[in-house]
Amino acid sequence: MIVGGVAAGMKAAAVCRRRSPDANITVFQDEDDISYSACGMPYHLEDSEEIPREKLVARTAEKFRADGVDVRTGCRVEAVDTAAKRLTVRNLSDDTVSTSSYDRLLIATGARAIQARLEIGDRAPQMLQLRSLGDADRIRAALPEVGAAVVVGGGYIGLEMAEALRHRGTAVTLVEMAPRLLPAFDEDIAARLLQELERNGVTARCGRKVIAARDGQVELDSGDSIACDLVLLCTGVRPNVGLAEAMGLELGPTGAIKVDARMATSVPDVYAAGDCCEATHVVSNTPVWYPLGDIASRQGRVAGTNLAGGEEAFTGVLGTAIFRAFEHVVARTGLSKQQAEDAGFDPVDIAYSAPSRAKYMPASRNLTVSLVVDRATTRLLGAQVDGADGVDKCVDILATAIWAKLPVDALRDLDLAYAPPFSPLLAPVQIGGELGKRAVSA
Amino acid sequence: MIVGGVAAGMKAAAVCRRRSPDANITVFQDEDDISYSACGMPYHLEDSEEIPREKLVARTAEKFRADGVDVRTGCRVEAVDTAAKRLTVRNLSDDTVSTSSYDRLLIATGARAIQARLEIGDRAPQMLQLRSLGDADRIRAALPEVGAAVVVGGGYIGLEMAEALRHRGTAVTLVEMAPRLLPAFDEDIAARLLQELERNGVTARCGRKVIAARDGQVELDSGDSIACDLVLLCTGVRPNVGLAEAMGLELGPTGAIKVDARMATSVPDVYAAGDCCEATHVVSNTPVWYPLGDIASRQGRVAGTNLAGGEEAFTGVLGTAIFRAFEHVVARTGLSKQQAEDAGFDPVDIAYSAPSRAKYMPASRNLTVSLVVDRATTRLLGAQVDGADGVDKCVDILATAIWAKLPVDALRDLDLAYAPPFSPLLAPVQIGGELGKRAVSA
Repeated sequence: MIVGGVAAGMKAAAVCRRRSPDANITVFQDEDDISYSACGMPYHLEDSEEIPREKLVARTAEKFRADGVDVRTGCRVEAVDTAAKRLTVRNLSDDTVSTSSYDRLLIATGARAIQARLEIGDRAPQMLQLRSLGDADRIRAALPEVGAAVVVGGGYIGLEMAEALRHRGTAVTLVEMAPRLLPAFDEDIAARLLQELERNGVTARCGRKVIAARDGQVELDSGDSIACDLVLLCTGVRPNVGLAEAMGLELGPTGAIKVDARMATSVPDVYAAGDCCEATHVVSNTPVWYPLGDIASRQGRVAGTNLAGGEEAFTGVLGTAIFRAFEHVVARTGLSKQQAEDAGFDPVDIAYSAPSRAKYMPASRNLTVSLVVDRATTRLLGAQVDGADGVDKCVDILATAIWAKLPVDALRDLDLAYAPPFSPLLAPVQIGGELGKRAVSA
Repeated sequence: MIVGGVAAGMKAAAVCRRRSPDANITVFQDEDDISYSACGMPYHLEDSEEIPREKLVARTAEKFRADGVDVRTGCRVEAVDTAAKRLTVRNLSDDTVSTSSYDRLLIATGARAIQARLEIGDRAPQMLQLRSLGDADRIRAALPEVGAAVVVGGGYIGLEMAEALRHRGTAVTLVEMAPRLLPAFDEDIAARLLQELERNGVTARCGRKVIAARDGQVELDSGDSIACDLVLLCTGVRPNVGLAEAMGLELGPTGAIKVDARMATSVPDVYAAGDCCEATHVVSNTPVWYPLGDIASRQGRVAGTNLAGGEEAFTGVLGTAIFRAFEHVVARTGLSKQQAEDAGFDPVDIAYSAPSRAKYMPASRNLTVSLVVDRATTRLLGAQVDGADGVDKCVDILATAIWAKLPVDALRDLDLAYAPPFSPLLAPVQIGGELGKRAVSA
């Protein structure tokens, strides 16, 4: 039995099916949609003709059913008796309640949006969030009437939605509670991102809260108001662990479900995967919570193998992440300098910029790279990269190097693919190897 | 003293200058140009307004001289007396001969074009090659009068020049002696490349030799003729080791100068770097010869450090290479299956295709990947990648993984940067990790 049918749950179902052709596999999903790319929703909303709704669905419930996976959409699991190994399920369409027994159970309940605390008065603009595909449907339906929008929250989804709305010609104000954008990234990256937003007509209000919505506008704690037709609440997510807590599953320090490498929880025969559970950081060896689709999918694979009686371990995460706002791309992997200090390393950081391709190629753009290196071992611990071209390649090479525990000077010696349309003679990561080597030997 | 002033020689000069502010550094270069990007020449010839000649020069002789590097262009080193540590130099502008003494010497004489053996009769089309910046000048000067060209040789430069000529509207026939394009790559890659050439109006004639040029056409060994205004000879290169042989430097099995990890040759105080010398393959641990600009630059760095009395080792190569012909990109790294067998591994290879980005993103294209894995150790040994998008990123991640001696299943577990504009949920290399793991355990 699997509770939750998006990235982790459906991946687990597919893997379990492949490994165990005879198992009875049931997925309970409270939404009507399963197996969709939540990360793709902003791009769908940016241009629903180029990326229609059905393209976001990786695999339909019909296809899963044809493979013998019993997919129950519109069904909410309300309680789990782990001693009796029994679920209580409410069918949301007819409001009936039934019970089901399991041998092994996977909790893949994902994350839920943090509800912004604000006063909603008369004639408030429409207030929507973007968490499920149903949310995307509501936003898409609203957009033709929206001339001006306020995006609350400057995280990845807020930024991607600001881009989507601007591409549709909507006036956009982004309101971020923190004093600057991207508090998890270096300050100069946040400054470059802010420039890019302004260049594309997004008004950013940092260090401000929306305290009320009424009379066709939102009111900020600064006292001023912004007229708008739509308020998009992108104020972050929390692990969706209500059911897990009620079941008595142990939570970790991040507030998400604690799991071992096999994705097993503290309760026998109960596994967890995806945005509702933790992962171990490969560099710091501490539990972390990164609600990202690719991690959910990989955890789902491991959980699916183990549900089927196999033996597989999840090898952990580096916190690698990337997003694009208009032409600007920001990425990170591994530990920040602060995180490295907290984890007991003696980190030194270096920052530099480098062209993404041979300088004379018209498509070349400058990348900014910062590396965090452990002074004692010279090991590369983390990196942040931003720019308009080649950011994904640069961060993926660095993530692979961190994964392999390479010392920073190995970056200089890597034999990477050189031709003018793809890289300068000395690739951005190779420059980092040279500078990093000097920094740790200084 | 440094003989040769392109990638390896000038990199060595710059590094030596930085490490040893008081050293007397002289570079002898028989051409008039130094420190230019030979790899950029096809792009310059494709559009000399967008990429003018001066952009190909990384650093001018004047700048080197301002840093106290004595750059002697138009000077050919004709002999080296390694016992007396003395060079005989001919100044090509006034044909005078002088001698110079050295403490340490770097041979960076590069590669030379293989001369095609063909009969040249009356009214032969213009015959040019592309090896030096002077060659590029001659081609650029000729192009306005060229309506049809024959490119002889289907290596990287021949393919890049076919693209450059087609973009200028020239009719292009490519003649390749081997029965197919790219004999060093898998056959299906060559077939896809051939399709791309044909799609872009290039006529390819494989398994054919040009035996004569006269009367405004070239004659093939098949008996037929091709009318053309220009014949571009891109029939490959050999290490330029005439001087080295005369000096008594030991050559390796590849025919290039044998060097140790410090870039020292068999003769005391004589170093070599760049296209004239060998490198050690990191996976097979055998000497190889890859005349590529990025390797030359890295070897130049090591040689420059050691010329200055430092201690640095060149860590070897993977044979990573990439090129683009029109929209199609082909890359490789590490060992082919045949090379792996020759090196004593028990290789298994797998091939698959995968989208470069989330499938629903309009920029996503299919990549084809093949991996070579050692059955005994499960270590990744080599890879070939081709496609229209993301080839450079994919091969660089694989090159980093091979460099770090990662087992193939580690690819599956890498924490790479996921967002729909940059990668599918499961990145192409991660799919390879899963398939590779199954292949070695089968």
